[in-house]
Amino acid sequence: MTTTQQPTTTFARRAQHVQSSFIRDILKAAGQSNMISFAGGLPEPSLFPHQQLAKSAYRVLMNNGQQALQYTNTEGYLPLRQFIAERYLRQQKIPIDPEQVLITSGSQQALDLISKLFLDAGDVIALERPSYIGAIQCFSQYAPEMAEIELREEGPDADQLHQLTHSKPVKFFYTIPNYQNPTGRRHSLASRKETVAIIKNTNTFIIEDDPYGEIRFEGEAFPSLHSMLPEQTILMGTFSKMVAPGLRIGWVIASSDIIRRLTILKQASDLHSSHLDQQVLYDYLTHYDLEEHLKGVRELYKKRRDVMSNALKNYFPENVEYQIPEGGMFFWLHLSPRIAAMELLKKSMKEGIIFVPGETFYVGQPNVHTARFNFSNTEEEKMDSAIARLGELIKKEEGHRTVVKWWPMP
Amino acid sequence: MTTTQQPTTTFARRAQHVQSSFIRDILKAAGQSNMISFAGGLPEPSLFPHQQLAKSAYRVLMNNGQQALQYTNTEGYLPLRQFIAERYLRQQKIPIDPEQVLITSGSQQALDLISKLFLDAGDVIALERPSYIGAIQCFSQYAPEMAEIELREEGPDADQLHQLTHSKPVKFFYTIPNYQNPTGRRHSLASRKETVAIIKNTNTFIIEDDPYGEIRFEGEAFPSLHSMLPEQTILMGTFSKMVAPGLRIGWVIASSDIIRRLTILKQASDLHSSHLDQQVLYDYLTHYDLEEHLKGVRELYKKRRDVMSNALKNYFPENVEYQIPEGGMFFWLHLSPRIAAMELLKKSMKEGIIFVPGETFYVGQPNVHTARFNFSNTEEEKMDSAIARLGELIKKEEGHRTVVKWWPMP
Repeated sequence: MTTTQQPTTTFARRAQHVQSSFIRDILKAAGQSNMISFAGGLPEPSLFPHQQLAKSAYRVLMNNGQQALQYTNTEGYLPLRQFIAERYLRQQKIPIDPEQVLITSGSQQALDLISKLFLDAGDVIALERPSYIGAIQCFSQYAPEMAEIELREEGPDADQLHQLTHSKPVKFFYTIPNYQNPTGRRHSLASRKETVAIIKNTNTFIIEDDPYGEIRFEGEAFPSLHSMLPEQTILMGTFSKMVAPGLRIGWVIASSDIIRRLTILKQASDLHSSHLDQQVLYDYLTHYDLEEHLKGVRELYKKRRDVMSNALKNYFPENVEYQIPEGGMFFWLHLSPRIAAMELLKKSMKEGIIFVPGETFYVGQPNVHTARFNFSNTEEEKMDSAIARLGELIKKEEGHRTVVKWWPMP
Repeated sequence: MTTTQQPTTTFARRAQHVQSSFIRDILKAAGQSNMISFAGGLPEPSLFPHQQLAKSAYRVLMNNGQQALQYTNTEGYLPLRQFIAERYLRQQKIPIDPEQVLITSGSQQALDLISKLFLDAGDVIALERPSYIGAIQCFSQYAPEMAEIELREEGPDADQLHQLTHSKPVKFFYTIPNYQNPTGRRHSLASRKETVAIIKNTNTFIIEDDPYGEIRFEGEAFPSLHSMLPEQTILMGTFSKMVAPGLRIGWVIASSDIIRRLTILKQASDLHSSHLDQQVLYDYLTHYDLEEHLKGVRELYKKRRDVMSNALKNYFPENVEYQIPEGGMFFWLHLSPRIAAMELLKKSMKEGIIFVPGETFYVGQPNVHTARFNFSNTEEEKMDSAIARLGELIKKEEGHRTVVKWWPMP
């Protein structure tokens, strides 16, 4: 043997299960051009309080830099964990001890740590159908059997959830009860009660992922599943949509026992999340007004939701079905059975417009006629004209003749 | 069933393998008091360029905050990857494409991603005996069979390495060739050549962890194993010891194929490392003089190495054996067969002094008479008197009568 090539190694089985996220791949393509993107789940960057964070960063580094730049404990910066705990108490009347808060590198790391803690290959987990692609991607590293529970307009199908969790051991049920990714749906109060009743007294945990709960445009807040069944629920939150995702600061709320176990796994995974970012964020949260900031976020996203809603109504054929989301960042469209979303994407990319075909959000047989449209990250003017052009494309695909003159805009 | 307790769930098998690091546990204890600590591997915080980083952070957030606070690609901030690649070329004459650089959340995450890529339960890996506890902890999440290769003064035992890697499939050999943690040893040039000759044309990768290579007090730099066998070596670096660990910015150098595979796993693990920290660090690296900064780091650590070396010589019994490290952060002591380091630690903690018993750095049967002493993070004055007190303790343990008057210092 005289080869100088890389060894013919066998990689771990898990490495063959995990695929790059389709979304991130098309986002990468989008980043290289002037695409109008409804594809990502990106917050609007002009909302980021970058000047306030600049002052916070300067203050932290000048006044406390030696500490903020040093290694720290794995659990996270204690004042930040206290802030998070106190905010739950203030806002949702949920008493949480700071010991029950683990700071993670975004919610994505929380998913990874939870998977590490619970999953051996072949274990059964339940998740909504459809569900967040990043969670599916993360879970697939641990080769579980993923059982999909149909997500109805009001919440997960209770019969399916009951049948599954009462017929075999299910490690956890992963759910996004508020303005779900990708569907934008929110579980009704009745659905929440039903979910909790089903899960209670099983050996199944609820993994409650709540990145969008604060992005509520209408209606009252509903109690979290965690507040209704704390001993069996692991609640995940993040500052990514509230403040800025580039900081990668999320958190997990769970029993002290679970937090201790997750902390050991986090220690083995990255020692701790950026100490500097945790302190900068804490300085921001205590020197400025997060609640005022969130008002601005909601206001802009609601406006964009309305613009997209009107544009869909004006330009898309009537056989395209959707609910109007009451929060979050996404519309979920059911196109007609004649339109495959992936084919539509290929054509729309040529027009400089991208979105995510819904098929990427399924574990089993996908519904290829669905599509996810993000509305948080596109300026209103561009949104209207782009939806108009997409409407034309769909109508062409449908073989419709149309007299709508769509370009240039009047 | 009417319990309201946490379900009697079975956690993943891996979660039972992983234990909290003893070091981090005693550091946590130390953080709560005025202990004099030789235990951690902490850099000296007064060296952190916190004022320059404050200016960098302010500049990045004011001028480019919208981008720096947004989600970004998993591979890392391209200018930072280019900086790292160019520095290897400039300093070590190694041509590296920025595509071959993956930014990670510290070296610890690199270890986790590499383990994820390579390890199924039961796979064989090799590592030095003794080795870095954080690596052992990380690997143990994936339940490999860990084969220890005795680390001699000049490098890993070549016969053992040859026998192992030529008798069965070994996924990788994990090594820290420069000023190893915990021993402070550096592989000689001859040892490096021998290691490479042994590994070449096997299906084994070398995982070369190099956090301390820049902290060189004496002698010439030796070529990295990566430079001698690039197609079979994955090289890990970090800014933790060069600039500041609180940022959690490390990197991996490997073939584009390996980087692509690691990137997919990183995407599933945390999407990306802090975008803000990557940009702040890059601004620092391009506005200030890293090489000048490193001179200051080397100078202070060398001084402390000398103080510890003199103190060990002055106060410890002659039967305590050690090499004087030519770089890095650690002394590795062999106490006499009558002294168990863990017992000594229990006594020294009562005197307010901590260090790490060497037994924590072994996978198999440990040498309980070894101890790791960090010298980077203790002021010179405190170091001298604390080593003197420890010397007294050791002499007491040995049953020696001594006439050395050690406190108060003259």
